[in-house]
Amino acid sequence: MYVAVVGPGTATEEELAVAEEIGARLASRGAVVVTGGLGGVMQAASRGAAQAGGGAVGLLPGLDRAEANQWVTIALPTGLGELRNGLVVRAADVVIAIGGAYGTLSEVALALKAGKPVVGVGTWAIEGVLAVVGPEEAVERAFAAFGQRCVPTQRP
Amino acid sequence: MYVAVVGPGTATEEELAVAEEIGARLASRGAVVVTGGLGGVMQAASRGAAQAGGGAVGLLPGLDRAEANQWVTIALPTGLGELRNGLVVRAADVVIAIGGAYGTLSEVALALKAGKPVVGVGTWAIEGVLAVVGPEEAVERAFAAFGQRCVPTQRP
Amino acid sequence: MYVAVVGPGTATEEELAVAEEIGARLASRGAVVVTGGLGGVMQAASRGAAQAGGGAVGLLPGLDRAEANQWVTIALPTGLGELRNGLVVRAADVVIAIGGAYGTLSEVALALKAGKPVVGVGTWAIEGVLAVVGPEEAVERAFAAFGQRCVPTQRP
Amino acid sequence: MYVAVVGPGTATEEELAVAEEIGARLASRGAVVVTGGLGGVMQAASRGAAQAGGGAVGLLPGLDRAEANQWVTIALPTGLGELRNGLVVRAADVVIAIGGAYGTLSEVALALKAGKPVVGVGTWAIEGVLAVVGPEEAVERAFAAFGQRCVPTQRP
Repeated sequence: MYVAVVGPGTATEEELAVAEEIGARLASRGAVVVTGGLGGVMQAASRGAAQAGGGAVGLLPGLDRAEANQWVTIALPTGLGELRNGLVVRAADVVIAIGGAYGTLSEVALALKAGKPVVGVGTWAIEGVLAVVGPEEAVERAFAAFGQRCVPTQRP
Repeated sequence: MYVAVVGPGTATEEELAVAEEIGARLASRGAVVVTGGLGGVMQAASRGAAQAGGGAVGLLPGLDRAEANQWVTIALPTGLGELRNGLVVRAADVVIAIGGAYGTLSEVALALKAGKPVVGVGTWAIEGVLAVVGPEEAVERAFAAFGQRCVPTQRP
Repeated sequence: MYVAVVGPGTATEEELAVAEEIGARLASRGAVVVTGGLGGVMQAASRGAAQAGGGAVGLLPGLDRAEANQWVTIALPTGLGELRNGLVVRAADVVIAIGGAYGTLSEVALALKAGKPVVGVGTWAIEGVLAVVGPEEAVERAFAAFGQRCVPTQRP
Repeated sequence: MYVAVVGPGTATEEELAVAEEIGARLASRGAVVVTGGLGGVMQAASRGAAQAGGGAVGLLPGLDRAEANQWVTIALPTGLGELRNGLVVRAADVVIAIGGAYGTLSEVALALKAGKPVVGVGTWAIEGVLAVVGPEEAVERAFAAFGQRCVPTQRP
């Protein structure tokens, strides 16, 4: 499972702590974390994932791999600017959104438009977003939503 | 001035009427209308613009020009799917959003992220959106916002 | 019919003259000219089209409409950098390539990959390119190739 | 170092053998292999890299991760169609091209345009491509070109 963790490049301490724990929990359960590769929530989620021994893909807005934060394990420059937000969503099976920036909102909207589950922690109250209160619930809901989507119950 | 008129492909009668009048008013004042080129709000805005003798650019999600509605005067297939929403925003100086679809929300978010004025008629109540009540006010606000942005007061 | 005229931003006098005449001939026959919107061949083709009273769409690599040359009638910033070459190809029914730059080569390759006719004037000798000697023949071949593609002879 | 291995989805036995050995040699020297994620040369290079314990990123043209070949270790749907070729190039420090398809040509052209080293094995004879005869030389040249680009000799 690939999970996009999206949120602002400039975040509060609480948002960073939430992002890092989400990254760690996702990685410890075997999910690949996908972010926009820069700072703030993107960096914290990548750090959590990398320190838990998992993969952290960073889809960068610019053309320079060096703009990736140090915790990204696969850094891919796209040169698309904010349009790389759409690639982050396309690369993901589930999106976890943290905080309230406009870029995050674009990712929430594109994910909902594409019919992908969106779990939110302190983010935009958009219909369709599964609002949760913390990292543990966020990751639980993400796995549950992915399971509901991809492993239909098989009855005899 | 290029103005993106964004809104759902399946719209209410009221939304369609609003979009058509906005397209007509924009064209009659010399603005080029940019849309996603399909039906609903996109078609209505294009019709308004074209019937007023103006230009209606359609940036299509698919690869087939034939999917453009009949009122588009310049139909450009992009093959980017929903990512063409970002191109619609980039092509615009100002965005006028109508109605409440997720695709529209992504365009509102990307425009606000890019620092472009967003005028809204019956759309998402996102901070930064200039909410108006009808077509005339929408077009007035769009021109005013563009003017504030691009024609700084020149004092002797 | 939409015809992309692709070629280098820094071109020889001969290439510029060829591009301008091609733009003029295309416009006088009702085709919309699509270019990358910048200088050199792009500017010359746009000038030819605009002076003949036709449309010249410029799909710009950057985010600033002001980078378009003055002859573009519809200027659309994409912010995609060289990836906008692919959009130029997608927007076109036929591609006319002039000169030998790498960007031009990418457009030739993407057009051939997409199965679109490519007419070449002094450009890369790639299998599949219809090599011609001048503007008149280029435009003739472009219209003929488009016709073959889109209006199959219907015989009983 | 990230190396794009580009080539046709339907390839000869020799091209496949070359691609697999290149993938293996790159991975054994610590490079990440980037491909378009589908079959043929893309699959062979990914298999070589994965079997050597390395990373094989697949940037897929469609929206479905399941279209990736089984050897891709990070599979990212882009939904951009052939425009994902440009992302493959942007993700790479060096490009190794195998065989003579049009998609490959577009990647060669975009890489040369971006000033990135292109090593070619049995591919288009385009000025700027470093033509080599086999996998070992291809990988040597790729590393040498990357070194020349990024680690200038510093002498007192």
